[in-house]
Formats: sequence, structure tokens, C-alpha cells
Amino acid sequence: MSKAPRVTAAALAIGDELLSGRTKDKNIGHLAEMLTAAGIELEEVRIVPDEQERIVEALNALRARYTYVFTSGGIGPTHDDITADAVSAAFGVACDHDADAVALLGAMYVERGMEFTDARRRMARMPVGSRHIENPVSRAPGFVIGNVYVMAGVPAVFQAMLDNVLPTLQTGIKILSDKVDCPFGEGDIGDALAVIAKAHPDVNIGSYPRFSGQKFSTEIVIRGRDLQAINNAKADVEAMLSDIASHKAATVV
Amino acid sequence: MSKAPRVTAAALAIGDELLSGRTKDKNIGHLAEMLTAAGIELEEVRIVPDEQERIVEALNALRARYTYVFTSGGIGPTHDDITADAVSAAFGVACDHDADAVALLGAMYVERGMEFTDARRRMARMPVGSRHIENPVSRAPGFVIGNVYVMAGVPAVFQAMLDNVLPTLQTGIKILSDKVDCPFGEGDIGDALAVIAKAHPDVNIGSYPRFSGQKFSTEIVIRGRDLQAINNAKADVEAMLSDIASHKAATVV
Repeated sequence: MSKAPRVTAAALAIGDELLSGRTKDKNIGHLAEMLTAAGIELEEVRIVPDEQERIVEALNALRARYTYVFTSGGIGPTHDDITADAVSAAFGVACDHDADAVALLGAMYVERGMEFTDARRRMARMPVGSRHIENPVSRAPGFVIGNVYVMAGVPAVFQAMLDNVLPTLQTGIKILSDKVDCPFGEGDIGDALAVIAKAHPDVNIGSYPRFSGQKFSTEIVIRGRDLQAINNAKADVEAMLSDIASHKAATVV
Repeated sequence: MSKAPRVTAAALAIGDELLSGRTKDKNIGHLAEMLTAAGIELEEVRIVPDEQERIVEALNALRARYTYVFTSGGIGPTHDDITADAVSAAFGVACDHDADAVALLGAMYVERGMEFTDARRRMARMPVGSRHIENPVSRAPGFVIGNVYVMAGVPAVFQAMLDNVLPTLQTGIKILSDKVDCPFGEGDIGDALAVIAKAHPDVNIGSYPRFSGQKFSTEIVIRGRDLQAINNAKADVEAMLSDIASHKAATVV
């Protein structure tokens, strides 16, 4: 097994609208895919409301435990955007207007002939000592402090910010995976699959049921760091499935 | 303000596939909508991997804090379905085959002329002392122990189980809400909206930015328990928006 260190991560999605069901989160799934592709293991996700104590509590629990924490939401210009204040409180630093961010936004609004309102100035507030995360979509930057990456909730902006963050991260060994589409439900394969999983301890075999509305089928996913080990397990899974198929055919005859 | 007790809830979604990005969760958003409609406040969501210690840790934190906890995932027939064992461990009770569940499933497989395999018997395992949650889709029941409702991860099954659970829950005062579609970005309205929010302390005013790919607009949501208070706040928001519209028109001329 490799000696390379695991790189772990947590996501913290912030917003009452996610908990009321009004907004369906699109950022967690995207972040999960991007981190997995980079060999960073997303190990926990939390969603909390726009309440400072709740954000601080979750952030301090997660940043102590994982290599990286990625937050989404609550960095806009309105009164209910309190993420910058909460992150500052979690780190015990002041939340203030960042000079570079004020300059960046001020220039943009001049360019656009728009007024640089107090609300818009709110978007330049961040924990003192933060670094910017560039926002090519709407310019107002996210920020990084310690191992915490604070990004917008609007998916187009979150994704653009994440694209700028990913190349700067320490990445782990990429987790390889392969899959077998299984036409049978988990009940048909569970026993045999458990035997195969035991026989291949160096891979992780996941079984994910799907329901078409009429019948269940299964996606079998084999994950690991060694391609040969994955291929060996996959061969056993495929052999198991053809056994079951021929057995079913026989019983139908 | 009403004296009726708040009823709170947390969701715990269980599964490596959610954290790898392979599966995009559909249950949290559905649960959030259904609970909000019932006046139950979803206050926290966590997603954890298929690891017993992680499930136990999250479940014990959440069940102590909220009126109800709803879990999704990990109750199928395969080796990686460990939710029943983890919930049992969290409650310090044995996880065993439930006689009623075995009878239910046994009868179903006889009906279907299918073998009642050990894997399928796994779906009858639950913490000793649990009550069933009926599953009209694929029959294998979820279960309730204490204030924890354990349901399937397949959305069609999760939703059917939740439909059976909701009528049995203590529900709070329904949170009413109304919304105003605002054609302007948050930067245009943030200052005025903050003033309105201060002037209407008995409602919660949320501002949710949307990005079309070209421009930002905003959905302003007003939540509360008193319809008149919501209407009063809404009137102020609408007046504020027409002020801004006429100001913009004037500046264009």
C-alpha cells in the first residue's frame, strides 16, 4: 500500500434556504466529484442555517478534523449574508473591509457606472489576514483563511471559484474506480458480492440500488488505488453475474 | 408570538457514494420541503460515509439535539449496508432479524417464486425494539427507534416511507412564506432591504441571488408565522423595488 498521505476534506453549506427546501443544493455534489477526481477524500458534509453560532460550531469542528474545509453560501451583499462574520469569529479575528477587495469592486462599479453602495461594500468584508479566491463571474472574491475556503452559494460562482482553488491544493493519490452495471436487484447478488468483497480486501466494493419504477437493478462500483486489484475484483463480479444469469435462464426453462 | 413548541429535525444521509459525487442526493431537498410544509424546522443536515463509528457519532450528536432525526441510506441487502448495525450501536441495543420483517419478506419472496437469500434476510435486521416504517415500493421496511427514523436511500422508497412517517409526527406551527421576484441584483437592494428587515423584526427576510449567465436577479423570501406581518413586509419590499425601478428609469433618461 502507498505511503502517500491521505488528503481529506469536509463541505459546509450555509443557508436557511437549503434547510427549508426552497433551494436544492447543487454545490455539494459538484465539489464531491471534483475532489474525488483530485484524490482528495470528502469525508463529511454539513448544512447549517444562517446563524453565527451554528456556523462557528460546525466550522471549528470540521477545520480541526480535515485537511481542508470548503464552505458555500452567505457571502453576498445582503443583511442575511453573515458567513464572513461567522468565519472571522471562528478564527477569532476581526471581520473588516479588505482594501484590495474594496479597490477591485470599486473599480468594477465605476466601470459599470453603478453606485458602490454600502451593501456592495459588504462583499469586500472578510476575516483580517484572508487571501482572495478570484471570482471571474461576478468579481466579488471568496476568501481563504487557514484551511478554510469560503465560496459563494450561486452554483456558477461556486464552480468558478473552485476551479481557481483546486490547482492550489495538496492532492492525494487518485482513487481509481470501475463499475459493473448489474441487471439484478441487490437481493440476487448480495450473498455472492459479500464473498467477493471479502476475497478482495484491497478494494472497496460498493453496491448502489436503482429503482426504475418497475424493477430494481444495481450499479456495482469497485474503488481502489491499484488498477490491477480493481480489475481482478471486477472479473470476479462479472463471473458471478453470468453465473446468476445462466441460473435464472435455467430456472425459466 | 405563539406559545406552541418548536418542532425541530435533522437529516443524516449515509453513503460513500454521496461523498464521492457518484450519487447526487435527492432526499435532503425533498425532506426539507415536506418538513417545512408540516411546520417542522429542519435545522441541520449531515452526510457521512458507510463507517459505523462515523454514523454512530453523527447520530448521537443529532438525536440528542433535535426533536426528530431522519436518516437515508444503508439499509439494503448488501455487505456495505451497515446502517441498521450502526443505529443499534448508537442506541446500545442488539441488531437482529425482526420476526415480523422476516415473515413479511419471506411471504413476498414465496409469492414471487424467489429465493429468500441471506442477503435478503439482512433487510429484516434492525435494532431490537424498533417499529417498522412501511415500504409500499419494495416491501423491506425502514424502522423507528427513539426519535430516529431510518429510511432507504433510493429516492422512490425514501419518499414512500416518509409519506408513511409524516402523519405520525408532532408538527409545529406552519411557517408561512411569500416571495417577491426582484429583477435587480442584491447589490441594488441590499441597503434598502436591510432597513426593511430591521423594521419588520417579526418576519425573516431572505435574499437569494440568481445568475442567468448574463445578469443577477434576486428572489426575496419573507417567512413568518403571522400572515399580516408577512403582507406588511412584502408591501414595503414592493414599494422599495418600484422606487429603485423608477430611479433607474430616471437615470437612463
